[in-house]
Amino acid sequence: MRAALILAAMKIAMGIEYHGAYFQGWQSQPNRAGVQDALEHAIAQVAGETVRLHAAGRTDTGVHALMQVAHFSTTVQRPNTAWVRGVNAHLPPWVRVLWAQSVPEAFHARFSALGRRYQYVLCQQSVAPATQHQRVGWIHRPLSVSAMQDAIQALVGEHDFSAFRASECQANSPIRTLHEASLVQYGRYLLFSFSANAFLQHQIRNMVGALVYVGLGKLTVADFAGLLTQQDRRLAPPTFMPDGLYFTGVTYADTWQLPPCTADWTVSG
Amino acid sequence: MRAALILAAMKIAMGIEYHGAYFQGWQSQPNRAGVQDALEHAIAQVAGETVRLHAAGRTDTGVHALMQVAHFSTTVQRPNTAWVRGVNAHLPPWVRVLWAQSVPEAFHARFSALGRRYQYVLCQQSVAPATQHQRVGWIHRPLSVSAMQDAIQALVGEHDFSAFRASECQANSPIRTLHEASLVQYGRYLLFSFSANAFLQHQIRNMVGALVYVGLGKLTVADFAGLLTQQDRRLAPPTFMPDGLYFTGVTYADTWQLPPCTADWTVSG
Repeated sequence: MRAALILAAMKIAMGIEYHGAYFQGWQSQPNRAGVQDALEHAIAQVAGETVRLHAAGRTDTGVHALMQVAHFSTTVQRPNTAWVRGVNAHLPPWVRVLWAQSVPEAFHARFSALGRRYQYVLCQQSVAPATQHQRVGWIHRPLSVSAMQDAIQALVGEHDFSAFRASECQANSPIRTLHEASLVQYGRYLLFSFSANAFLQHQIRNMVGALVYVGLGKLTVADFAGLLTQQDRRLAPPTFMPDGLYFTGVTYADTWQLPPCTADWTVSG
Repeated sequence: MRAALILAAMKIAMGIEYHGAYFQGWQSQPNRAGVQDALEHAIAQVAGETVRLHAAGRTDTGVHALMQVAHFSTTVQRPNTAWVRGVNAHLPPWVRVLWAQSVPEAFHARFSALGRRYQYVLCQQSVAPATQHQRVGWIHRPLSVSAMQDAIQALVGEHDFSAFRASECQANSPIRTLHEASLVQYGRYLLFSFSANAFLQHQIRNMVGALVYVGLGKLTVADFAGLLTQQDRRLAPPTFMPDGLYFTGVTYADTWQLPPCTADWTVSG
């Protein structure tokens, strides 16, 4: 009889999109206002048991995800469509499961991740964009985009990013490798793209804040590069607002055979 | 002494952006939930007197504007910056005055308008887009975009648009001239653009609803063209959701020397 109690645990990975302004960040909160809380509650309705979600990246309050990846373990078997449509039926419309797939026990959304990608959308306009309220960052003064494009190159490669690390950051090391750091202008929008093995807390908002200072002429391109080598957060400009930050994807080894794990912002016109 | 009481009336035109989900349409409502109510209240704070706004187009509940144009008359003189920044300081962040400029007494935002432009953004994806909640229309089934692009051409020119006219529409005539009707795909988004001298009530949402039927294969391209000639609303597909509809501009004669009166969608996320 005891054999029947040994239930095979299933591991399910999910791609998730959410609007960060409706939540107090990814992580579970005592008041249940985390994205994780909403999802764990909805999954429990479908699974008939409590689950614990593990995400590739823990986004801050106000930060969005076009593609977050998370996994959970469960003893129940459901078709993938139940983990998508069934769970979505128990979620508010500002968070959606995009796909779900069973994964080997060895997979871990966070520890199996080889890289993360974020984009920051900054609206450069004298008046704040009413239709993009809480969806983009905003600067009312004109920016020198070409100076910012020059400066951003300094970020690519392996660096000690202490200058752009939140004081409360708990990472063991401030060293990260940026594979991409780019800036493209589309009309009133500036689209920043950053890919790295991993990011420090507030790293992107701090880098964007410093790049905005370059665009305003408050820092030269050389000053900006100097921030990296000085490795002192106190010398760098303030953290920029979370509104324009989007978690847009995770890189995993092909061997996991996951559905698409990236979903970039597309800007045109 | 009486001469001092004869105050010169100033006429001010404004470009306005708003997120339609926060309002019950443009028009003033008994519960003050119209965009017009919010603006008239904010302008009154700056003017020190009540004003009445007249808009180029009265958008429905849930419909957005990247560029609405409106005017009001006032007896007070203020710099244009006061009509922008001062008024914005009294508005919620989901409605913004983009520019303000004094105009000749003969100008009327509605009656001087030579043309209007709208865009509709439709997200084609199995799951509703969480980060674009209330900002785009959504269809979960795949669409044949090329069939829709063929069908949309039938709309260009002068037609009796009775097939796409709301039953409660109060326009004197169902005849309108469409200068442009186009459809472009950007990743998961379909962007429809319509320019005309004027539009009937619900005309664009009804045209988009019928085009979606073409995309789903429920109507052929010939069926779609036939709706126009049959001129019977009861034969046409239902009105599509307002979420993806944006008022994006007004055409006025150059002689009014107004700031830019169009602001097209930038496809995003």
